[in-house]
Amino acid sequence: MNASPAFSTKNLETAEQLEAVLRQIGAARYHSLHPFHRLLHGGELNKGQVQAWALNRYYYQCSIPIKDAVVISRFRDRDIRVEWRHRLEDHDGDVGQEGGIERWLKLTEGLGLDTAYVESTEGILPATRFAVDAYVHFVRDRTPLEAIASSLTELFAPTIHEERIAGMLAHYDFVNPSIMTYFKRRLDQAPRDAIFALGYVKQHAHTPAEREAVCNALIFKTNVLWAQLDALYHAYVDGHVPPGAFAPKAG
Amino acid sequence: MNASPAFSTKNLETAEQLEAVLRQIGAARYHSLHPFHRLLHGGELNKGQVQAWALNRYYYQCSIPIKDAVVISRFRDRDIRVEWRHRLEDHDGDVGQEGGIERWLKLTEGLGLDTAYVESTEGILPATRFAVDAYVHFVRDRTPLEAIASSLTELFAPTIHEERIAGMLAHYDFVNPSIMTYFKRRLDQAPRDAIFALGYVKQHAHTPAEREAVCNALIFKTNVLWAQLDALYHAYVDGHVPPGAFAPKAG
Repeated sequence: MNASPAFSTKNLETAEQLEAVLRQIGAARYHSLHPFHRLLHGGELNKGQVQAWALNRYYYQCSIPIKDAVVISRFRDRDIRVEWRHRLEDHDGDVGQEGGIERWLKLTEGLGLDTAYVESTEGILPATRFAVDAYVHFVRDRTPLEAIASSLTELFAPTIHEERIAGMLAHYDFVNPSIMTYFKRRLDQAPRDAIFALGYVKQHAHTPAEREAVCNALIFKTNVLWAQLDALYHAYVDGHVPPGAFAPKAG
Repeated sequence: MNASPAFSTKNLETAEQLEAVLRQIGAARYHSLHPFHRLLHGGELNKGQVQAWALNRYYYQCSIPIKDAVVISRFRDRDIRVEWRHRLEDHDGDVGQEGGIERWLKLTEGLGLDTAYVESTEGILPATRFAVDAYVHFVRDRTPLEAIASSLTELFAPTIHEERIAGMLAHYDFVNPSIMTYFKRRLDQAPRDAIFALGYVKQHAHTPAEREAVCNALIFKTNVLWAQLDALYHAYVDGHVPPGAFAPKAG
């Protein structure tokens, strides 16, 4: 009764087979395939729809360091905690030094959204909050191995970021290079993070069952990203904005 | 920037004002107003779409006793635990005695869904899982007062159940009275539960801030219900079924 997946999580005897299946999962389910991104990157959205995307995505951005702090809290192994800690710095920055969240607020500000309103998160779609919070709960409630595995969508992020930077700059007169610095920065950060996480799961998933759990953690995370775009598409492309959510000015 | 709500959570000096605002929230945001329910109750869905609704809603049904067990676990007051315990019995039944979950499986079976597949929940929309799990996490993480307040959607349930029973029996040849027993039973159960929960929050919310928290817990819960229907509408009415989710047979 299910759409048949483009991969099987049943043949996972080796770390190399695990990596191959993880890459198949990304090729089949990463949100670069979502219709909303085709519209966003192809210049087919109006400013209000791009605002809705950036406003909702802010909740994901500002939840990532909370998620990463939970991941750190799962490890008694100091080396992992030290390695993972730089993710907090990447997103939160430091005293007098901007991080990813501030860079995202440059994007929302550049799109004409009030920063206090964005930071309040009061206008986001409930479905955005449910999906993002599910990610934080996942890394708290599942095994440390699954917590790290759920970050593996970063393996597939650079391509979509390059596509997004080029597409948004080419198509939207309300987008300029200075507000796209978040994505430019992630082009360096995401691969480093992904390489560590991939190496970790290949080394620490010892059995086919553990490798399947790693694959399912990545599938879970692709669902977290996909569900956010489904909700944006339903509300702001098909026009079913739920009660209390951000309502763009006509345009 | 927000759609202006049909109520204010700012004028909450008394228990009576609290009840009035709670009823305004229900009138403005309960999912009886959702377009998907108009289609469902009006006979405008095909069998596959009704199957998708029942399959996804099963995940909500089978999570309710887990949610209620968490609520019970929040109270050191034996009387509340005893009062709330009958909700577990209503949904789980007893040895040799069916409960709400079994009645829901009669509905899905009557709609032609394989019970093992329904119970596996593998075909549900990720957005359904995120929304329902958010409800379980809410009653665990918020105050006991908010945990009870989030059940207050039951104040508004009898009307939608009557509408659903009449509408589905009138419009769908694949629906018969025996598979609608879940809703008939809830017509008695929900009011009893709602009256207790309403009395509890009116008695135990002592300050305007606590009454506002009660209102926000009800708004949260209306969002949990609304988001599930948004996801069903997007996937099965507009036809954007996400990867891995239930795909109805043509019909």
